[in-house]
Amino acid sequence: MSKPTVRVAVLGAGRMGADHIERLTRNISGAEVSAVIDTDEARARSAAELAPGSVVLPTLEAAIDANAMDALLIATPGPAHESAIMLALAAKLPILCEKPLTEDPVSSRRIVEAELELDRPHIQVGFTRRFDADYIQMRRFIERKRAGELLMLHCVHRNPSVAESYRPEMLIADSVVHEFDAAAWLAGAAIRNVEVRHARTNSVAREDLREPILVLFELTNDVLVDVEMNVNCGFGYQVTTEGVFEQGVARFGDPAGLQVFETQKASFGIDEGHSDRLDDAFNAELQAWMDAVASERLVDGPNAWDGYQAALACEAGIRALNEGGRIDLPVEERPAFYA
Amino acid sequence: MSKPTVRVAVLGAGRMGADHIERLTRNISGAEVSAVIDTDEARARSAAELAPGSVVLPTLEAAIDANAMDALLIATPGPAHESAIMLALAAKLPILCEKPLTEDPVSSRRIVEAELELDRPHIQVGFTRRFDADYIQMRRFIERKRAGELLMLHCVHRNPSVAESYRPEMLIADSVVHEFDAAAWLAGAAIRNVEVRHARTNSVAREDLREPILVLFELTNDVLVDVEMNVNCGFGYQVTTEGVFEQGVARFGDPAGLQVFETQKASFGIDEGHSDRLDDAFNAELQAWMDAVASERLVDGPNAWDGYQAALACEAGIRALNEGGRIDLPVEERPAFYA
Amino acid sequence: MSKPTVRVAVLGAGRMGADHIERLTRNISGAEVSAVIDTDEARARSAAELAPGSVVLPTLEAAIDANAMDALLIATPGPAHESAIMLALAAKLPILCEKPLTEDPVSSRRIVEAELELDRPHIQVGFTRRFDADYIQMRRFIERKRAGELLMLHCVHRNPSVAESYRPEMLIADSVVHEFDAAAWLAGAAIRNVEVRHARTNSVAREDLREPILVLFELTNDVLVDVEMNVNCGFGYQVTTEGVFEQGVARFGDPAGLQVFETQKASFGIDEGHSDRLDDAFNAELQAWMDAVASERLVDGPNAWDGYQAALACEAGIRALNEGGRIDLPVEERPAFYA
Amino acid sequence: MSKPTVRVAVLGAGRMGADHIERLTRNISGAEVSAVIDTDEARARSAAELAPGSVVLPTLEAAIDANAMDALLIATPGPAHESAIMLALAAKLPILCEKPLTEDPVSSRRIVEAELELDRPHIQVGFTRRFDADYIQMRRFIERKRAGELLMLHCVHRNPSVAESYRPEMLIADSVVHEFDAAAWLAGAAIRNVEVRHARTNSVAREDLREPILVLFELTNDVLVDVEMNVNCGFGYQVTTEGVFEQGVARFGDPAGLQVFETQKASFGIDEGHSDRLDDAFNAELQAWMDAVASERLVDGPNAWDGYQAALACEAGIRALNEGGRIDLPVEERPAFYA
Repeated sequence: MSKPTVRVAVLGAGRMGADHIERLTRNISGAEVSAVIDTDEARARSAAELAPGSVVLPTLEAAIDANAMDALLIATPGPAHESAIMLALAAKLPILCEKPLTEDPVSSRRIVEAELELDRPHIQVGFTRRFDADYIQMRRFIERKRAGELLMLHCVHRNPSVAESYRPEMLIADSVVHEFDAAAWLAGAAIRNVEVRHARTNSVAREDLREPILVLFELTNDVLVDVEMNVNCGFGYQVTTEGVFEQGVARFGDPAGLQVFETQKASFGIDEGHSDRLDDAFNAELQAWMDAVASERLVDGPNAWDGYQAALACEAGIRALNEGGRIDLPVEERPAFYA
Repeated sequence: MSKPTVRVAVLGAGRMGADHIERLTRNISGAEVSAVIDTDEARARSAAELAPGSVVLPTLEAAIDANAMDALLIATPGPAHESAIMLALAAKLPILCEKPLTEDPVSSRRIVEAELELDRPHIQVGFTRRFDADYIQMRRFIERKRAGELLMLHCVHRNPSVAESYRPEMLIADSVVHEFDAAAWLAGAAIRNVEVRHARTNSVAREDLREPILVLFELTNDVLVDVEMNVNCGFGYQVTTEGVFEQGVARFGDPAGLQVFETQKASFGIDEGHSDRLDDAFNAELQAWMDAVASERLVDGPNAWDGYQAALACEAGIRALNEGGRIDLPVEERPAFYA
Repeated sequence: MSKPTVRVAVLGAGRMGADHIERLTRNISGAEVSAVIDTDEARARSAAELAPGSVVLPTLEAAIDANAMDALLIATPGPAHESAIMLALAAKLPILCEKPLTEDPVSSRRIVEAELELDRPHIQVGFTRRFDADYIQMRRFIERKRAGELLMLHCVHRNPSVAESYRPEMLIADSVVHEFDAAAWLAGAAIRNVEVRHARTNSVAREDLREPILVLFELTNDVLVDVEMNVNCGFGYQVTTEGVFEQGVARFGDPAGLQVFETQKASFGIDEGHSDRLDDAFNAELQAWMDAVASERLVDGPNAWDGYQAALACEAGIRALNEGGRIDLPVEERPAFYA
Repeated sequence: MSKPTVRVAVLGAGRMGADHIERLTRNISGAEVSAVIDTDEARARSAAELAPGSVVLPTLEAAIDANAMDALLIATPGPAHESAIMLALAAKLPILCEKPLTEDPVSSRRIVEAELELDRPHIQVGFTRRFDADYIQMRRFIERKRAGELLMLHCVHRNPSVAESYRPEMLIADSVVHEFDAAAWLAGAAIRNVEVRHARTNSVAREDLREPILVLFELTNDVLVDVEMNVNCGFGYQVTTEGVFEQGVARFGDPAGLQVFETQKASFGIDEGHSDRLDDAFNAELQAWMDAVASERLVDGPNAWDGYQAALACEAGIRALNEGGRIDLPVEERPAFYA
C-alpha cells in the first residue's frame, strides 16, 4: 500500500494557476491535480494538459458537486476570492488562497467570521515570502534574540518595471502588501500605523505612479519599518531586508550566484523577476500545504487572520498614499483560534 | 486516473540510504519507496518507517524475485556495488548508484561492458554536484562561450574535519573524485594526467593525512585544473570554483545567506557539511532520475562511462599521491552509446 | 630654491588638535606646524612635541601679534569657534575650522556676513566625508547622471557606543550633521525640512537616548533622504550610503579588507571608529586645504555657507527630535560669493 | 626652525620617474626633489617642471660631483641599475631602487657584496606591495598565528593586457617577481624551487605568450604557493591572495568601492591598472623611505638581499618556463647584516 495522494483542484487557469498546476504535478510529493476549474474552457483545457489525469470543470459548484477534490487552490483575481472561499468553507475544503485574501478588510473580516464557525482554520493565504530560506533564517535570528531585540527593519522592494495596467494604489495593495505581511511575521507583532513619503519622481518611467515611495510603518512592539517601494528600477527584481537589533545587524538580499569579471567590472547575477527569486519558496509553500492537508492540520502558513490584517494595512496605506499623514489601524487581539 | 508512480527499492539502509528514502518519500513527485533492502534487518526496518507502505527485504535477489520495484537506488558501500549492479542489469532495472560506480577501473569497465549489451544506458551515478544550481550556471556560462574558451579552473574543496576512519587515499577517491567528475563535465573533456603537490602539513589536525594537498590535472582540451583539497579547515564545508576564460573570469562558492554584523566583524553563514550545501541538489538529482525512469529515458545525469572515467582518475591520483610525479591516464574515446 | 612651506598654527591642543598636528607634520606636503595655541600650557607643550620647530602660545591674539602663522586650523570645542574665526578673519588668515562652524544658525550667519566683507572665502569647514574616496565616487556618479537623476538616499550611520557625556541632541548636532552636509553636497541641493521617527528603543544601551532614530529630510530638488542614526550598535563604526536613481542604484560602505573564514563563519573587517574609516580622508582634506592656501584660492572644500546650512538643519532636526512633526528650514539662495 | 627636508635626486625621467617626482613633490612630507638626472635633456626638463626648484643634470656622476642630493631614487630600466647603485654606494648615498635590483643574480650578488662593506644597508628595493594595506593586514594575520601556521598561498595576478614589447620571460621577471617577493615576505621564508604549468592558451590574446600560466613555488618552511599569471584577462588589474592556515583561511583582493546595480547586474569597480590599485602604497613606500633616510636608519622596506633573492627566483622561474620541471634555487642563509 502506497502513501495517500491529495487531490487538488485549481480554480483559475491563468498564468499563476498554470504555474501552480505545473509545480503540484512535477515537484510536489503526495499531490495530484485532479481538476482545473475555469469558465474559459480553452484556457482550462490548456492548463490541464500540464497535469495528466486531471479533469476540466466550468465552476467551483460543479467541482464540489462532482466531489472532484480533497483541497482547493484559488488562483483567480482578487475580486472572485470571497465567493469561492465561502463555497469551499461550506464544503469544509482545505483552501490555499493566493494573496490577497480579499481586496478590502470588510470582506476579509466576513471570511474570518465564517471560518470561526468551523472546528479549525481551513484557509492558508499565499504570502510566499514566509517560505523563502532567507526570510526563514532572519525570523529564526530574531526569535532567538541572538543580537537582542529587533528595533528597526529596513526593506527594499524593487521591480524592473510594471505593466501599463499597474495603478498607483497597487504600489500598496499589490507590492508593499508583501512587506506588511512579512515584517509583521518577522517581528511577531501587528501593524499600528502607516505613512507614505514621496521622493523625487522617476521621470524616465511612468510619472503618474509618482514613485519610488518610502513607506513607514510602526508595529505594536514599537519596531519601525521603512520600505523603499520602487517598481521601475530597471535592473531586476531585488528584495532586501536589514534588521537592526540592540546588539548588531542582520541583512539579506544582496546579489548571489555566479560572479563574473568582464570589461572593467565585476558583476553578480540579479533575478529578473519574482518567479526567479521565489521559485524554491513556491515549492516549499505548496509542499508545506500538502503535508498539512495530509496530516489533518490543514494549514501550515499564513492564515485568514493574517490575510485580514494585510487588508487592514493596505486600506490604511492607500489612504496614507492619497491623503498624506500617518494613518492608524484598528489594532485587534488575534483570536486564539488563529494562534 | 492519476499519474503513474515509480516504485523504488533502496539497497543499503545506512545514513545515505535513509536520507534517500526520506527524500523520495517527502520531496520527490512521482516516486514511492516500495522496498528497503539490507541484511541488517533492524536497520532496514528503522529506515522503512520513513516510507509508509514499504516492505523490508534481506537481499536484492529476494527483491527481484518478489518484483518489488520498478527502479533500484544503490546506497551500500562501494565494494558491494559491482555485484548489485550486475544483478540489476540482468533484471533490466534502471539504477541510481551512489558514487563511486566501483572502487577501481577494472571492475567499472566490466560494468560498462555489461551495460553495452543492453539497448540503452540503465545506470546513473550519484555525482550530485551536476545538479547544484551554481555548477549548472557555470556550465551554461562555459558552453555559451560568453567570455571565450575556458582556460583554467581553480577549485577549493574544504571540509571542517573528517572521521578517524578517513585514510590518505580517500583524499583522492572520496573527496577529489567530485572535482574529477565535475571539472570534466564543466569543461566537456576527459582527464589526461594527474599530479599531487604537498603543502606544509597541518599539525593541529591529523598529521598522517599530510594535507592540505594541491591536485593538478590537465584535460584533453588543455584546460588546467588545480584543486585545494583540505579536510581539516575547521570552519565549515566550502566548495568554490573559479573559471579563467579568454576574456574574463567567473566564480562561485563565496558565502551567502544571512549577513550578520556583530562584535567587530561582519559574518556570513557557512555551510556545516555537504548535506547543507547540496540538499537542493540531492532533490534535483532524484527528481531528474525519477522523471527519466518514468519517461523511458532511464538516465538523466552522469552515466556508467563517467563513473569509469572517475575510477581511472582516482587510480592515477592515488599513484600520484603515493609516488609523486605526473601520472597519465589512458585516454579512450567515449562510446556513442554514452553520448 | 625649494618649494614654499605654509606655516600653520593649530588652535586647541586636545585629541583632535594633536591628531591634526601629527598629520600636518608627518603626512602633508608643503606644510609645517609653526605654533600650537592653547590656554592649557602643558597640553600645548605636549602636542607641540609632535611638530619639531613649533612654538607654544597661550592665545590666538598673541599668535597673530607674533605673526606666527600663514594659516589657522581651529580644533577647539564649538562654543569657542565664533570669536576665533572673527579674529582670524580680521587678520585675513585662511582658516580650517573643525565642524561645527558654530553651534547655532544665528552665530554662523554672523560669520557669513563678516566673511562677505572680504575679497573671497577664507573659511573651510571640516566636513571630512567630502574627502573620502567612496563619497567622491558617489558624487561623481550622481553628477554624471550615469543612471539618471538621483531620487532617494538611504544612509546608515552607526557607532559602536558613545561616551556618558553624549546627550540626545547630539544625535542630530554631532552625528546626523555629517549626513546633512554630505547628502546636500552629494545631491547638489539644500535641505527643505527635517523629521525624526523613533524606533523601538535599545534597552541594553543608554535608554535616555531613545535611539536608534530614523531621520528623514527632503532636499530642494525633491530628493528624499533617510538616515538610520544608531550610536550603540556594538560592533563597530559603519557608514553606508545607497543612492536610488531613475535607472539603477549605487551603494558604498559594505565591509572591506581582509576576509577571514574561521569557526563556522566568514568575517570581514569592520572599522572600530571614525578615525579608522576616515584616516585617508583627513589627510586628503588637509592636503587640499594646504594646496589651496599655497595657491591663493584659500579654500578647497565646504565653506562657511555650508557650515551655516548645517547649523540651520541641526536646529530644525533638534526641534523635530523634541517636538515631533516635519520642521521646515528657511531656504535661502546660495550667494554667488560661495558658488 | 622648521623640520629638515631630504633632498632627493631622481635618476631616470621616464613615466615611472616622473610619477615619483610628482609624488615626492605633492604628497610626501619632508622631501623635495632637488635634481632630475637623465641623459635625455628634454625629458629631464619636462619632468623637472613637476618639482619647482629642482635642477636638471645629465649624469649621476655630475650630480654626485655637484652634491645635488641627500638620497637617490633610481627609476631607470633594469640594465642600468648596477652601475648607478655602485656609484651611489661609493658616495654612501641612501638609495631607493625600482625593481628589479638587477636583472640577474650574479650582478645582484655583486651589489650585496659591495653593500656589505658599508656600516649598514643603504639600498631599498621598490617592491611596492609590501606597503599595500591589504598585504600588511595579511602579514600581521600570519605573524600573529591567529589561525595557526600558514600552509598554502593561492595568488592571482591579472593584467587587462600588455604592450607588444612584452616577451614571455617577462611573465616571470616582470610580473611573477612581485609574488616571489611578496609571498616570501608574507610567509617569512625563502623560495626553495619553482615550477611552471601551462593552461590552455588564450587564443584571442597574444598566442606567443602561451598564457595564462600557473606558477608553483615552495618556500623553505614548506608553504606551497600557486600563482595564476594572466596578462590578458581583459577586464582590469586584479591581485588577490588567499592564505590557507591550520585553522582557517584569509583572503583579500575582491572588488571594492562603489557597488552599482544596473541592467540585470550588480557591478563593482575594478582597478584599471596597477597604479590605481597601488597608488596609496607608492605614497606609503616613499614616505617610509624618506622617514628612514631622515632618521639615519636609511632603509625601511625590502633591501638588497631581498632583491638578490628575487633575482634568483626569476632565474629559476625562467628556466622552469623554458625547460619544464621543478627548478631548485640555491638556498643561502640571510646575512645578519640584512636581518
